Amino acid sequence: MQFIPKCPFLPFDEQAYQPTDAFFMKCAYNEALRAWELGEIPIGAIAVVNGEIVARACNQVETMRDATAHAEMQIIRYLSQKRSDWRLNNVTLYVTKEPCPMCSGAIHKARIPKVVVGVWDKAQGCMGGCIHFSEILRLYHNVDVTCESLEGACEELLRTFFKLRRQSDKV
Amino acid sequence: MQFIPKCPFLPFDEQAYQPTDAFFMKCAYNEALRAWELGEIPIGAIAVVNGEIVARACNQVETMRDATAHAEMQIIRYLSQKRSDWRLNNVTLYVTKEPCPMCSGAIHKARIPKVVVGVWDKAQGCMGGCIHFSEILRLYHNVDVTCESLEGACEELLRTFFKLRRQSDKV
Repeated sequence: MQFIPKCPFLPFDEQAYQPTDAFFMKCAYNEALRAWELGEIPIGAIAVVNGEIVARACNQVETMRDATAHAEMQIIRYLSQKRSDWRLNNVTLYVTKEPCPMCSGAIHKARIPKVVVGVWDKAQGCMGGCIHFSEILRLYHNVDVTCESLEGACEELLRTFFKLRRQSDKV
Repeated sequence: MQFIPKCPFLPFDEQAYQPTDAFFMKCAYNEALRAWELGEIPIGAIAVVNGEIVARACNQVETMRDATAHAEMQIIRYLSQKRSDWRLNNVTLYVTKEPCPMCSGAIHKARIPKVVVGVWDKAQGCMGGCIHFSEILRLYHNVDVTCESLEGACEELLRTFFKLRRQSDKV
C-alpha cells in the first residue's frame, strides 16, 4: 500500500449555484479532492442534464479494487442503471482530467455528446490531448470536447499529488 | 427494440477439455452464441489462469442497459471483485472480436498480459486491427496479442449476425 500524503487543497464553495462550466468543474474538482482523501489519484467527475447535476463520482480504483472504477465509468454505469437506458445522449460530463482510453471509449459507447475537461492528458488522453478517437477510429458518434481549467487548479491538483507522492516514496 | 434473427450456429463441444488457444476460443465462441440468444451483438470472452477457465461472460449491453457491459469489462470487474485486487496480471483473456477502445483501455489498466482475439476489428480495434494503443499512448504496460480465428468461425458469426439483422430491418 502506497503512502498517500495529506491533501493541501480546500474544496470550492458549492453554495452559490451557477449553471456555468466553471461552477460545474468546481463540483468535479471537489469530487477529485474526495478521491485524494480516499487515497486515490485525485480525479473527479460530474454529470449535468439541463443545468442540473444528476450524478457525481470520484476515482475509486483502490477503494473498490477495480481497475474500471474511474470516476467517468461510475457515472456512466450509475446513470444507465437509473434510467434503464445505455444511451446517455443528453448528458454533459465534467471531468477534472481528460478521459483515459477506457473512459473515452465508454463515453463514445454511451453516446455522451459533450465533455468538459479540467486538464488535457498528453500521455494517455484520447479526446485531443494525446490522440483523438474521433479522428482515427470509426466510432459512429462525435463528442464535443472543451476545457475549463479553473485557472490551472485542475492541473495543479494532479501535479501536486504526484509530486508529494514521489517525495514520500523517497523517505 | 430491434428484431434479432434466430442464430443459425451451434455451440462447440466443451466436453473434451484441452488447454489450447483453440479450445479456449471455442468456449468464448459459445459465450458469443449466448449473447446472440439474449438479443445482443454476439461477442463472448473467457479468462484463463494456469490453464483453467476462471471467468466467462458475453456482451450484455442491451440486457443490462449499460454501454459498459461488454464481455471483457464484465470479466475484469468480476475477477477484480473475486480477488479483491484490480491487478489481473496472470490472466489470459480470450475474446471472439478484438477489443474496442473502452475494453482495450480497461485491459491495459487491469494489467492483463495476454489477449487472444477471434477476429481483428479494422474499424475500432485498439490492439493492432485499427490502431495499437501500445504504439501511440504512454501506457506503462504491454499486452501480448495473438489471433485464434477458429478457421474463420469468429468472423463468420459476426458477419452473419449483421447480415441477418440488416435483412430483417428491410422487411
